[in-house]
Amino acid sequence: MSQQAERYVSVVTGELEEFCAAIFRAVDVPEQDAELAARSLVEADLRGVGSHGVVRLQVYTDRLAARATNPRAEPRILHSTRTCAVMDGDNGLGSIVGVRAMQEALRMAGGEDCAFVAVRNGNHFGTAAFFSEIAAEAGAIGFTFTIGGINHMTPWGGAEAMLGNNPFAVAFPTPLGFPIVLDMACSVAARGKIIVAAKDGTPIPDDWAVGPDGKPTTDPVRALQGFVQPIAGPKGYALTMTVGLLSTMLSGGAFGSEVTHMYEDLSQPQNIGQLFGVLPVGAFLDRADYDAHIKKAAEDVKSVRRAPGVEEIFLPGEREHRAKLRQRAEGVAITAAVLAELKELGERYGLSAPRPIGSRAT
Amino acid sequence: MSQQAERYVSVVTGELEEFCAAIFRAVDVPEQDAELAARSLVEADLRGVGSHGVVRLQVYTDRLAARATNPRAEPRILHSTRTCAVMDGDNGLGSIVGVRAMQEALRMAGGEDCAFVAVRNGNHFGTAAFFSEIAAEAGAIGFTFTIGGINHMTPWGGAEAMLGNNPFAVAFPTPLGFPIVLDMACSVAARGKIIVAAKDGTPIPDDWAVGPDGKPTTDPVRALQGFVQPIAGPKGYALTMTVGLLSTMLSGGAFGSEVTHMYEDLSQPQNIGQLFGVLPVGAFLDRADYDAHIKKAAEDVKSVRRAPGVEEIFLPGEREHRAKLRQRAEGVAITAAVLAELKELGERYGLSAPRPIGSRAT
Repeated sequence: MSQQAERYVSVVTGELEEFCAAIFRAVDVPEQDAELAARSLVEADLRGVGSHGVVRLQVYTDRLAARATNPRAEPRILHSTRTCAVMDGDNGLGSIVGVRAMQEALRMAGGEDCAFVAVRNGNHFGTAAFFSEIAAEAGAIGFTFTIGGINHMTPWGGAEAMLGNNPFAVAFPTPLGFPIVLDMACSVAARGKIIVAAKDGTPIPDDWAVGPDGKPTTDPVRALQGFVQPIAGPKGYALTMTVGLLSTMLSGGAFGSEVTHMYEDLSQPQNIGQLFGVLPVGAFLDRADYDAHIKKAAEDVKSVRRAPGVEEIFLPGEREHRAKLRQRAEGVAITAAVLAELKELGERYGLSAPRPIGSRAT
Repeated sequence: MSQQAERYVSVVTGELEEFCAAIFRAVDVPEQDAELAARSLVEADLRGVGSHGVVRLQVYTDRLAARATNPRAEPRILHSTRTCAVMDGDNGLGSIVGVRAMQEALRMAGGEDCAFVAVRNGNHFGTAAFFSEIAAEAGAIGFTFTIGGINHMTPWGGAEAMLGNNPFAVAFPTPLGFPIVLDMACSVAARGKIIVAAKDGTPIPDDWAVGPDGKPTTDPVRALQGFVQPIAGPKGYALTMTVGLLSTMLSGGAFGSEVTHMYEDLSQPQNIGQLFGVLPVGAFLDRADYDAHIKKAAEDVKSVRRAPGVEEIFLPGEREHRAKLRQRAEGVAITAAVLAELKELGERYGLSAPRPIGSRAT
């Protein structure tokens, strides 16, 4: 499968964060929220998850400028018990609402109880890992579920978009200097990769997408008229359905036919639903025992015999942690196309995008 | 991919349950526990999940007879807060311990709080759905995670068995007459299918397994010397790792190199770890609002345009529910090979296996 080599440029992390924050401020986001939202985007690029990084700044800004997202949202608790709450995100930026919700879960848990916060009137929030890692830093296993902002998938056997490629993340505290983190969505391949194949005119593997008739296709053009395929067939369909229901049914977030298109419909709020949960390690057992056990588990996994050509076995989230450390020091890589987008966005608001400090091919 | 047609026979559900219970009693399991363990196995066959049904009676019995599993286990809470507990399963049958743990989670939650119970010293428990459905019947979203009883998988890039094909289930209460249930493990295909292909001498798809060198193989014999592949490559590796850690790190269950082989090592308890959790719907919002929303979600999914040749779109768990209703009425299908195994087991304990009431090819 050929894929176009994209040119990457490096920029100084702090400059990129400051630029994003300035853009957010320019569309009326208060200073502290602007900084947090900027940090959540740049964090994704630092982790090497460019699909959820500053490439999203433009759509966030467009939605804020159109007031499809509320720049001055004040999320509030609608209802709560000791350990369960529903938060109305007031249609704020997803990262702002998500951090508040995870903090509320940690507050309710108090290190002694499990706690879950269901969000309605949220928005696209970047990477799910960002929120689960907040819990892990506080000594709790953190769960984050969200419904996707676009229906790109069809139920198993269907030929009509009705489901999002719903992501979720689970983060475990560890004594390793970084959390073990699962962060995944439920499709085989991102739709962006199919777009690249269509531009290249190269066929795609037959498990990436179905055409508009619901049948598997290797033609990227038909695939774009159709739907992305769930991982592992019906398992992935059931998984994305489950993540979608977890994200919306406890809060009243939009599901299925209620989901609007993040990019194409700026006329109304999306009412994205999410679920945040924490299991504090100390509520179950001594942290020292847990630390020793998970360290042993990590060693077991990292020390297995390797397949030929494999240099190292990585724990989930370990590569991303390394990328973050390296890029914080050396500069964060974004594609030249994304930098061009940032420049254009900057011009709209009289702001200068960061200047590249280096470049490389993919 | 050719697959051997297996001959199925039907038996009366009640007779199969009574036979399993009698076998359990014969190896010293108390009456009530014997009935529950029997019901959990037959339930899997009723749902059409034969891999986790009475095919497991023999290994359960062998382990009980060898006292590798404790027939008269008395699970107890080792430690608890208001909403989090660690249960010692006393090395009892997995289904017995799992039901106690889920009931304890529901008791702690009291319809108002979320609650999680981490189990150590448990055993293989059949299908994860069985436990999550208990929560759904009580009006809560139910989570069940378990580590597998055999290390059949290698970490991504590895060539050494270190991970189980760890299953999990999430069940949602609905007003549809059945819960929506995800129940999945983290491999592309069950190892049993590779065994069948090896017997047939037919190649397997290249994403089912890697050989002993950690490289993908279509040769089922090499595959059996190697490891089953996770779904979606590194995503499935991260997922099975996550389910394994959730199942063991909060309780001290066995992970990685600590995991013994359910079938091959009867010299010691397995210390299987599990995690059970509940999110009572009523702790978040009115049940009537939830019911209306999930009914709408189900209708959205079921009513999508269908791919050619597809007669109906199924919700996760819906096929299994239908199979259960049908088989309860008409008799439950098991393979002729499994029935032969039951007969042999019956002879060992002076008990008659159920007599077939019908038969069919796969």
